Amino acid sequence: MTAPTPRCFRGFRDVFAGDLLLKQRMVEVVRGVYEAYGFLPLETPAVEFVDVLGKFLPESGTPEGGIFSFRNPDLSRGAHDLDPDRWLALRYDLTAPLARVVAQYRELPRPYRRYQIGTVWRYEKPGPGRFREFTQFDFDSVGVPTVAADAEACCVICDVLEALGFAANEYIVNVNDRKVLQGVLEVCGFTEVDITAEGSQAATVLRAIDKLDRLGREGVLQLLGEGRTDETGDFTEGAKLTSEQGSKIEAYLEAKVSSRAGVCDRLSELVASSPIGMEGVQELRDIDQYLTGLGYDSDRVVFDPTVVRGLAYYTGPVFEGVLTKEIVDENGQTRQFGSVYGGGRYDTLVQRFTGDSVPATGASVGVDRLLEAMKLLEYDNREATADVLVITLEKERMADYFSLAQQIRRAGIGTEVYLGTGSIGRQLKYADRVGYHLAIIAGGDEFSQKVVQVKDLQLGKAMAKTITSREEWRKGQPAQSTVPIEGLPARLREMLDQTASNPATT
Amino acid sequence: MTAPTPRCFRGFRDVFAGDLLLKQRMVEVVRGVYEAYGFLPLETPAVEFVDVLGKFLPESGTPEGGIFSFRNPDLSRGAHDLDPDRWLALRYDLTAPLARVVAQYRELPRPYRRYQIGTVWRYEKPGPGRFREFTQFDFDSVGVPTVAADAEACCVICDVLEALGFAANEYIVNVNDRKVLQGVLEVCGFTEVDITAEGSQAATVLRAIDKLDRLGREGVLQLLGEGRTDETGDFTEGAKLTSEQGSKIEAYLEAKVSSRAGVCDRLSELVASSPIGMEGVQELRDIDQYLTGLGYDSDRVVFDPTVVRGLAYYTGPVFEGVLTKEIVDENGQTRQFGSVYGGGRYDTLVQRFTGDSVPATGASVGVDRLLEAMKLLEYDNREATADVLVITLEKERMADYFSLAQQIRRAGIGTEVYLGTGSIGRQLKYADRVGYHLAIIAGGDEFSQKVVQVKDLQLGKAMAKTITSREEWRKGQPAQSTVPIEGLPARLREMLDQTASNPATT
Repeated sequence: MTAPTPRCFRGFRDVFAGDLLLKQRMVEVVRGVYEAYGFLPLETPAVEFVDVLGKFLPESGTPEGGIFSFRNPDLSRGAHDLDPDRWLALRYDLTAPLARVVAQYRELPRPYRRYQIGTVWRYEKPGPGRFREFTQFDFDSVGVPTVAADAEACCVICDVLEALGFAANEYIVNVNDRKVLQGVLEVCGFTEVDITAEGSQAATVLRAIDKLDRLGREGVLQLLGEGRTDETGDFTEGAKLTSEQGSKIEAYLEAKVSSRAGVCDRLSELVASSPIGMEGVQELRDIDQYLTGLGYDSDRVVFDPTVVRGLAYYTGPVFEGVLTKEIVDENGQTRQFGSVYGGGRYDTLVQRFTGDSVPATGASVGVDRLLEAMKLLEYDNREATADVLVITLEKERMADYFSLAQQIRRAGIGTEVYLGTGSIGRQLKYADRVGYHLAIIAGGDEFSQKVVQVKDLQLGKAMAKTITSREEWRKGQPAQSTVPIEGLPARLREMLDQTASNPATT
Repeated sequence: MTAPTPRCFRGFRDVFAGDLLLKQRMVEVVRGVYEAYGFLPLETPAVEFVDVLGKFLPESGTPEGGIFSFRNPDLSRGAHDLDPDRWLALRYDLTAPLARVVAQYRELPRPYRRYQIGTVWRYEKPGPGRFREFTQFDFDSVGVPTVAADAEACCVICDVLEALGFAANEYIVNVNDRKVLQGVLEVCGFTEVDITAEGSQAATVLRAIDKLDRLGREGVLQLLGEGRTDETGDFTEGAKLTSEQGSKIEAYLEAKVSSRAGVCDRLSELVASSPIGMEGVQELRDIDQYLTGLGYDSDRVVFDPTVVRGLAYYTGPVFEGVLTKEIVDENGQTRQFGSVYGGGRYDTLVQRFTGDSVPATGASVGVDRLLEAMKLLEYDNREATADVLVITLEKERMADYFSLAQQIRRAGIGTEVYLGTGSIGRQLKYADRVGYHLAIIAGGDEFSQKVVQVKDLQLGKAMAKTITSREEWRKGQPAQSTVPIEGLPARLREMLDQTASNPATT
């Protein structure tokens, strides 16, 4: 057998310490906010039956509809094709499994407010920064019929982003209502069936509206008409609206003004003849009232009629949290970082299973996207998890090094004993590579005098590269001091506190 | 289309708040110990190529060899059967992916010390407490040739279990060495090839030795001879050893004495004629020396020649952390809780990819098993994440309730606003069900007087069940007090601290 090539599957990746330590701190902050609102944790399997997940992803262009599916290995190959247990898949989000859980466990508290962090998988074409496996962190209120829960969800999103360190002018929460979108389509002459049918003219209109951000007004108008040719020459078929329909959608695109009440006034004019549309406008007015009462003003939460959100299961308010900080993207273009949170109301998702109406709403943050944003914010992402490395100068003294490390660790200071092979120079390079603050160096002479050498690695960083022999160490160095083993942990604590309070030395 | 049935795939399950809050605290403790030793976090994909994972699981009796595998959907159906990219699988552990990572990224620090928590999947027959999806939390030292790392791993296991609250007499770490096992098999006349060949006589002997705990001496002797019939009448074919071979293994089974040095002395007599066996005994002697130097004595870490560990990739020391606390199992039998940690040295796993020898060792804790053990220890597993529930008495005052909650939350006290529909009685039952400490009740009268009613739910638990109307609340209750809205958070903090310091009231 030939040796296997070490490789990841396309669109999958490994994540290392620098990113993960940051991710862990981030996840704790998000969890803290969710728990402050009383959401309870839930975990569900990575693998679900395909019929349980349902088909709600935006059109993916793959035969499997955007999911990784496989045959149930418990069933014989000859099992009936229509057996609902035949196909399994990796979950594509955490909302469809939540709907299953609510349908399956009638004994859960109502409202059931849960948070869940988990990996999800989508069978899509991977691209730069676009992976097939990613982490979502959701919160949802199930069994809440009023938009109080949707308003609260917007507050939670604001609180999370601010707890993570984004200022009120570095993000925005955009809110719309699917009922308003349905209303404007009804006003244009589409019926309800048209809107939800995949590949329908109405669906094409919604997709066009959704692209206002990316393509601008002109591009959207092309997609509403005959179609649009992009920079690469690819042609996208348009919705071929009549000029009367087109002008109604055009007016709709211009309904976004700075005040939330102002948007509601404009929308109620546009959808006046659609009862469902007017219901949507009233929901937005209610949300505005809650948010205004709590001080979440239109500098942070705005009403944007062009927000659609891709998932097919939304039925009412939809919202997204967008980081407005500008970044330079992979093509060298300056643009806003973009959406990190997405969510909305899905009043019929539980009903799929039970037939009973169970209204629900919530939102999901893309943890990996958020991590990218945090890195751009230049949060500390030192790799080391411990602070002290014990250099193993004389291998026959390993038990003494272990004993030293144990003494320091018991004082609450993370300590690694270097267990590899290699010269002192190589060991110091390792300490530098991982990001240790202090190194402890001791051989026979030191142990007989009951002392160790402590080296401040931040201070001595530049020198470390030139040191190759033990003798050079004996010469004494500014970043190095002799410390008695008795009381060593206390002295190390002092040195670490000093480094922390004096970043200029790093 | 008929409604899908809400259900989990066999051997998969949902986990709820009571367990998860405990799991989170537990994971933080484990992470804290791993980081104190300087291990760095890593995340790898759930999906790997089958050839990357290799075949190292114990015989599973399934054609797929114990893994959930599926075709690579990126390749056309007509792709060559021998294309190594043809098959993907869900990872069955975190060690095989670590070996891939080390082979793939030459720039990683050496030694590379990483920890990883992750879900793993095994395609096995599920049973009570036996799931196909579970969480492992591993730590490993890669690039360390000496058994200093194996000794350290035993210390880490002890430190984790003690940090979780297990006393030194409630667990034990059992250590053995695969080279010693190989030695005793060599002494019996088996060659190296026999030992590693699946289904070989030598492999049958190892499986029999591994079962000493469960079957006792008599059962193992049957499996070494003609075979054994279990309680259900099923017959397991034996290794059919000669009487000379049998008596050597029998002596080996009796080599376990209380002192580690004593075990080494006995083993060195038994495997004296096998160089590889003697190498194993020397490794154990070295481990003993490190452990003794650090005060990890034979009350916590013992040498047990019958420890085998199922995974095929181990090459040297193997160890397991066992909880010795007795429990009553699902059959009503009293027994030790059993193994939670497993690990060992796997010096050839990276070599599979690169041809270069990269020695490595580490261990893995079964997080779900540990969670079960913690529950038996009766750790607190209250479900609520927040402390205060704001009762929504008059739905038109929702904005006021939100505002109250926000004020309390900003003082660092987790607070939920009840967003469901339902009478005050139903709301209080919800608070009780979730486990809230305090409920805040206010209507028009209270708001006009700028006060709220605060109810201590722990104290009033018994009464809550009988309250059905708002009028009953007016009568005044011992567990209820009137508090001005001004300064409310401070008063709530006092009440929460009182509850915490006086558990007798709960």
